[in-house]
Amino acid sequence: MELQKNHKADVNTPKRITAGKPLHCKAAIAREAGQPLVIEEVIVAPPKAHEVRIKIICTSLCYSDITFWKLKDFPGCYPRIFGHEAVGIVESVGEGVDEVVEGDYVLPVFIADCGDCNDCKSSESNLCSKLPFKISPWMPREDSSRFTDLNGETLFHFLSVSSFSQYTVVNVAHLTKIDPSIPPNRACLLSCGVSTGIGAAWRAANVKPGSTVAIFGIGAIGLGVAEGARLCGATKIIAVDINPERFEFGKKFGVTDFINPNNCEDNKTVSQGWGKTIVLGVDKPDAQLSLLSMDVLLSGKSIKGSIYGGLKAKSDVPILVKRYLDKEVRLDEFVSHEMKFDEINKAFELLIEGKCLRCVIWMD
Amino acid sequence: MELQKNHKADVNTPKRITAGKPLHCKAAIAREAGQPLVIEEVIVAPPKAHEVRIKIICTSLCYSDITFWKLKDFPGCYPRIFGHEAVGIVESVGEGVDEVVEGDYVLPVFIADCGDCNDCKSSESNLCSKLPFKISPWMPREDSSRFTDLNGETLFHFLSVSSFSQYTVVNVAHLTKIDPSIPPNRACLLSCGVSTGIGAAWRAANVKPGSTVAIFGIGAIGLGVAEGARLCGATKIIAVDINPERFEFGKKFGVTDFINPNNCEDNKTVSQGWGKTIVLGVDKPDAQLSLLSMDVLLSGKSIKGSIYGGLKAKSDVPILVKRYLDKEVRLDEFVSHEMKFDEINKAFELLIEGKCLRCVIWMD
Repeated sequence: MELQKNHKADVNTPKRITAGKPLHCKAAIAREAGQPLVIEEVIVAPPKAHEVRIKIICTSLCYSDITFWKLKDFPGCYPRIFGHEAVGIVESVGEGVDEVVEGDYVLPVFIADCGDCNDCKSSESNLCSKLPFKISPWMPREDSSRFTDLNGETLFHFLSVSSFSQYTVVNVAHLTKIDPSIPPNRACLLSCGVSTGIGAAWRAANVKPGSTVAIFGIGAIGLGVAEGARLCGATKIIAVDINPERFEFGKKFGVTDFINPNNCEDNKTVSQGWGKTIVLGVDKPDAQLSLLSMDVLLSGKSIKGSIYGGLKAKSDVPILVKRYLDKEVRLDEFVSHEMKFDEINKAFELLIEGKCLRCVIWMD
Repeated sequence: MELQKNHKADVNTPKRITAGKPLHCKAAIAREAGQPLVIEEVIVAPPKAHEVRIKIICTSLCYSDITFWKLKDFPGCYPRIFGHEAVGIVESVGEGVDEVVEGDYVLPVFIADCGDCNDCKSSESNLCSKLPFKISPWMPREDSSRFTDLNGETLFHFLSVSSFSQYTVVNVAHLTKIDPSIPPNRACLLSCGVSTGIGAAWRAANVKPGSTVAIFGIGAIGLGVAEGARLCGATKIIAVDINPERFEFGKKFGVTDFINPNNCEDNKTVSQGWGKTIVLGVDKPDAQLSLLSMDVLLSGKSIKGSIYGGLKAKSDVPILVKRYLDKEVRLDEFVSHEMKFDEINKAFELLIEGKCLRCVIWMD
C-alpha cells in the first residue's frame, strides 16, 4: 500500500449549496455487534444550533472503536456509525456558531471544551461540566441523531464524533480549529490515542526532566506516552509489554528499557514518596480497582485517572500541532498503515491482530 | 485541671555532666498490649553516632499510639515506650552531629529528613530513602534500643521517637530545631497529628483559593485539615463525621458545613476532572482499598497517599512555627486537655472515648 506522506489538507471551501439541507454520503455502518461494517449511503441532517457539519478527510482507527463495536448489550447499540479519531473541513454551521466557519480545518474530539463552565475555565480540569463526557448513542445536549439510512432508520452516534462517515455533525464544543499546514493523515492522530498518550506524560503526570517513566502496554497510546515523556525530558523510559514485537515500535520512540513481564521476576513499581500512576482509557462500568492500601497509597504515591491525557482540546491540541510542524513532536512514525474507506474492515482486522499502530483511512 | 497556656520553653542548657553517660529517668512503659502504662525508672543510653539524647518537655497523645498499643502481635511488641508527638531540649549529641547542640529546642518527627538523599533533596517527596519510614521497634540505622529497665530488660522504641520518657534518643535526621518562642504545649502538636492535617491541605492536596474541601473524620487531624484548608483560602470546608459532638470542635476551625452520613442520603464525592482524595494515616498491613474503576479514577480524579501530610520536617515545620507566632496558624484550640506525666493513662481513656482533641502531658 502506498503511504501518502505529506498529503496537504484540502481546504477548499465546500459548496455552500449543501448548507441547511440533508446531505447524502457514504458511511460505514455497524449493523450488529462484532460484524463487519457495511458501507451504505446515509442521510446527514443539517446542523442544529451550536452544531457543525463537517466533511471528514480522514479518520484513523482507535481501539475504543473496536471495544464498543464488540458490545452486544448497552452501551452497545446498533445500527451505529463508529469512528472518533479524525480530521475534517467545516461544511456548514448551525445557529449560534461563530467559532468556526465553512472551510475551516477542524479536529473533532470526543470530550467537549465549552470554554464557559468552571471546569473549562480552570487549568486543572479537561472535563467540561456543561457537556459532560458520557457513552451516549446520541448527539450531546439533545438526545437525537443526525443520521438516517435510506430506509429512514435512525443510525446511532458514537462518542459525539461518528467519523466513519464522509460527513458528520458535531457540537461546536467538540471541535478544535487547527493550522491547515499539518497534513490530515497526521492531524487525525491528535484526535484521540496519540494525544491521550502524550497528554498523560505532559499534563496528567507532569513528568519532570530527569524522570523515569514506566509504560504498561505499548500500543499507540503507550508510544504516545513515550513521546510525551521524551518531550518532558525523561531520561529513562521503560516499556512493559508481553508482546516482544512491540519493542520494535518502542525503539523508534526513545524507549530505553524493555521488560517482558513473562520473562522477568522483577516488580517494577512507582517510587515511594512521589511516584505517580496514571490510568488511561476506559474500563467496564462495574470494574473494581483493588490496591494494597499500605503499599500503594499510604506512602506518598498517587494514582490518577485521566481522559484524553488531561489535555484541553481547544488550547492544548493547537500546541501539539505547532510542535509537530516545528519538528518537535513526532507523528509520522505512528502511522503504520493507510487505506481507502472501502477497506475499513481490513483496518479492524489489523488492529485486532496487533499488527498496526495507527491505520489512517481516507474518506474520498 | 489547670490549662497551662503560654508556658515558655525551658531552654536552660541541661547539665553537661550527664553527657556520654547512661541517664536514669522516668518513663511510661507499655508492658502488655492494651494494659495501662506503668511509670518506672529506666536507663537511657548515651547517643551513638548521628544520634541525639533529648529531654522531653511535653508530649501529646496521638491515636497512632493507641492503635499500636492495642496490637498483641507484631508490629506490636513489649515492653515498649510509646509516644511520638513531643518537643524537647537537646541534652547531649553523639559523634558526627553538628546540626544541633546541647540546649537546642527541638521537635522529634517520626519520619526522617536526612537532607542528603534524592528524596530529601527533591521538593516532591517527604519520604527519606536513606532512613526509610518503617514500623520498627528499634532505633533507625541500627537495630538496637537505647532503653533498659532496672532489671536490665531491653525496652522497645516506637516510631523512632518514644517520647513517653523524660529522656529519649533520636537520630538527628528525625529532629528539627525550632524557634524557642513557641510554647512547648503548642510546639508538640506539630510533631505529628496537627501537622499531618495542615500538610494534607497545604502540601499533599495543594488546595487552591476558592476550593471546596470535604473532610471525613473530625478528630485533631481532620481539624488540622480544616485549618490547612482555611490557610490555603478554601471557601467551603465540609466536615463529615458520625459523631455530632465533633461538630462543636469544627465550628472553631472555620468548618462551613456539617454532614452526618447517618442522617443523609447524599453522596459527597470529589469533583470529576480535578477532584483529589488524600488518604492520611496508616492501615492494616494487608488491607485492600477497592475503588469503582470508572467512577473514581477514569475521569481525572486522583487519590494520593500521604504520610505527615507531605510535609518535609526540617523545612516545613519551622514555617508552621513562624506562622503560629505570627498568629496565622491556630494551635491553641487543639489542646483540649493538659495533665501531668503520672496521669498518662487518663489521657489514653479520654482519647479512646473521643472526649479530647489533644491532651498535652507535661513530663516534669
